[in-house]
Amino acid sequence: MQQVNVGIVGVGTIGMGTLTILAENAEQIATKLGFSLGVKALCDLALETRPIPAALGPVQKTSDWREVVTNPEVDIVVELIGGTHVAREVVEAAIRNGKSVVTANKELMALYGSDIWDRAIGQGVNLGIEASVAGGIPILAVLREGIAGDRVTALFGILNGTCNYILTEIEKHNTPFDIVLMEAQRLGYAEADPTLDVDGFDARSKLAILAALAFGERITPSDIYTEGIRRVLPVDFLYAHQMDYTVRLIAAARQTPAGLVLSVRPSLISNRTILAGVRGSYNAIWVRGLYGEDTFYYGRGAGARPTGVAVVSDLMRVAREIRSGSPARVSPFAHERLGEYEPIPITRLKSAYYLRFRVEDRPGIIARLAAVLADKGISLDAVLQLPEENWRDLPFVITTQPTTEESLRAALAEMATHDYLIETPFAMPMEGRL
Amino acid sequence: MQQVNVGIVGVGTIGMGTLTILAENAEQIATKLGFSLGVKALCDLALETRPIPAALGPVQKTSDWREVVTNPEVDIVVELIGGTHVAREVVEAAIRNGKSVVTANKELMALYGSDIWDRAIGQGVNLGIEASVAGGIPILAVLREGIAGDRVTALFGILNGTCNYILTEIEKHNTPFDIVLMEAQRLGYAEADPTLDVDGFDARSKLAILAALAFGERITPSDIYTEGIRRVLPVDFLYAHQMDYTVRLIAAARQTPAGLVLSVRPSLISNRTILAGVRGSYNAIWVRGLYGEDTFYYGRGAGARPTGVAVVSDLMRVAREIRSGSPARVSPFAHERLGEYEPIPITRLKSAYYLRFRVEDRPGIIARLAAVLADKGISLDAVLQLPEENWRDLPFVITTQPTTEESLRAALAEMATHDYLIETPFAMPMEGRL
Repeated sequence: MQQVNVGIVGVGTIGMGTLTILAENAEQIATKLGFSLGVKALCDLALETRPIPAALGPVQKTSDWREVVTNPEVDIVVELIGGTHVAREVVEAAIRNGKSVVTANKELMALYGSDIWDRAIGQGVNLGIEASVAGGIPILAVLREGIAGDRVTALFGILNGTCNYILTEIEKHNTPFDIVLMEAQRLGYAEADPTLDVDGFDARSKLAILAALAFGERITPSDIYTEGIRRVLPVDFLYAHQMDYTVRLIAAARQTPAGLVLSVRPSLISNRTILAGVRGSYNAIWVRGLYGEDTFYYGRGAGARPTGVAVVSDLMRVAREIRSGSPARVSPFAHERLGEYEPIPITRLKSAYYLRFRVEDRPGIIARLAAVLADKGISLDAVLQLPEENWRDLPFVITTQPTTEESLRAALAEMATHDYLIETPFAMPMEGRL
Repeated sequence: MQQVNVGIVGVGTIGMGTLTILAENAEQIATKLGFSLGVKALCDLALETRPIPAALGPVQKTSDWREVVTNPEVDIVVELIGGTHVAREVVEAAIRNGKSVVTANKELMALYGSDIWDRAIGQGVNLGIEASVAGGIPILAVLREGIAGDRVTALFGILNGTCNYILTEIEKHNTPFDIVLMEAQRLGYAEADPTLDVDGFDARSKLAILAALAFGERITPSDIYTEGIRRVLPVDFLYAHQMDYTVRLIAAARQTPAGLVLSVRPSLISNRTILAGVRGSYNAIWVRGLYGEDTFYYGRGAGARPTGVAVVSDLMRVAREIRSGSPARVSPFAHERLGEYEPIPITRLKSAYYLRFRVEDRPGIIARLAAVLADKGISLDAVLQLPEENWRDLPFVITTQPTTEESLRAALAEMATHDYLIETPFAMPMEGRL
């Protein structure tokens, strides 16, 4: 069968990983497909500094993306520049010109994926977005096709490798967040501006895409309650360990009778769950299905080559659709709203909570906090205090029985009017039964 | 778009799970597909005893499978009767009649899958086999498409839930195999004739299919060295734990410079590996890719509903191919032999080994065993003896440095001529670096 040709816009880390695989693994890719994947155009502002594999053969090299999306030899445009402005222009122009598109751009897809898919279908081309979530883990293929027959009821993910690396370092060395972050930046595991990662926005974009696929619903990032990991202290791990839990940044989507509750936030997870074994910069997704029960997917969440595998596997799938004439075979985005899964506010979440307090040393404070909780209908589960000699400088912890986030927030608002609190209490949901 | 219709041959446990999902989840399935999946024919010898969901509407009910494979309304025949004789007739007749086929039959696919795929392609129909391996884990979709761009270098699986249940029960309660097996049979976790499971044949069929997909190679079960779990003793777990290992029935396929080494056998795996966390009747597959590094997939390996999810997801995929006119879009079986992956005998395996001995109490025995190992070029790593008072009744263990299975077997053959051995030594490879 005839070769399918690719043009890549943005030849940075992932672009080079993609090119390496396309060049080195060309024979096996062609054997699996029954035809070859060729590279015909590359666009980058610093292309001359990139060690483009010679095995690719003659390639158009340009710094103007328009030359790629209009190149008549190119069947599939790979968008790897990131951001949402130029990237959107590239993707939409490619589609307008009858090219299929593969992208690793989670932010673009979380914000405009559904619209972009409609445009692709309108033009009879395909769209591949596997690389936009969880790098080397083929979780979108799993949700779109692998377990399509199931009805997903909950999905919990560790979707940001930087945060998971930082949290496991805090856990291992009992070192504060700021110190670990600096070290992570020095090692290149965290960006100079870490906001997207440590404040949860990167994970939020990924969850928006995953939840759209898992629940057949249009989800926008603003539907997702988002809280980063800056407030997590080493002492939170000590308390968590007392209860055989640990702390992770969990991206969660759960179906409730009232609707879909979506959040990205630091959470306590039981050490008995398989998610708790995810350490360092790995990503993982745990899916609960009504029929298939629980499945779990784990792998590298980032990196040139693992993400390159996602890009190349998507290129192969899209190339197969092109050769089979089946661009609309599987929608990566929900077209119909099932209605049963409407996103609802986080205040509707029902969960047990971990509450960490720092207070001035006065008598009767626990009684007063307990009274506030009782007043909002919240039952205490335990009061924890680490057996340290100078415990007055240490925070203490109250865990609650399951309650609503709404009640919890009302209690915290009430507590905020009390003058013995040294800082706002820090609350995390406790996920024991994953 | 027009409905795609299904006929099911064999309405037992998995058949009922499949029907439940098709009936209960019909609306979501239709939304995802853009068209409906209907059930038009059911065949079973005891159909009148099955609680067929009324929501399916009018259905042809028969005890003659020929009526299903010739029913003009049926687009896809689901084969769920098992075995390789009648099942093969059903599948081949369905294909001859222009029907696509979905099957959960691992034995049939391991033995004849490649031929059956050739027939399907010859007739322009599709073949879905996701349910034949690892129940609710969509591992075939992952290997065929999800990580198609990668080059798999090793694959390790826990593929038999019965064996994993038995081994974790031995581990938990320090109870011998025979007692645990009886209990498992009483609870319905093991068959009255447990041979297929505990002697490794079930896992062997699954590995044959997985390895064919992962390495693009025609693998037959006879290529796979197979050894069951009957010789595993509670004391093996005690020794394993001393080294921070555990014991599992591991189905392994590894690429070596000389070729592909395939085995199903009890193995020591490090507790630090994610596979070691797989307990009870769960299944899991760990895949090492040259580019994507390690990914890991976990879920229910059996059960009516999890396997039903695999059948229904496959039905959806095949229905999509039918509606898109792309039956040959992705081959489930290798058509071309890459050559680099030829199966080679287990004697070529290079591994560290765990050797358990029971010997008569005489002086100098460890020295004699060590001399035999040294004579075959095998270096000792450690000699382990549990600190029991009556240790003379207990076996002791020698672990080796990495060596070839060929050298190991030569050493064991030499030892067999020594008269102080009470039983044949029990050898397991040690997998520390998964």
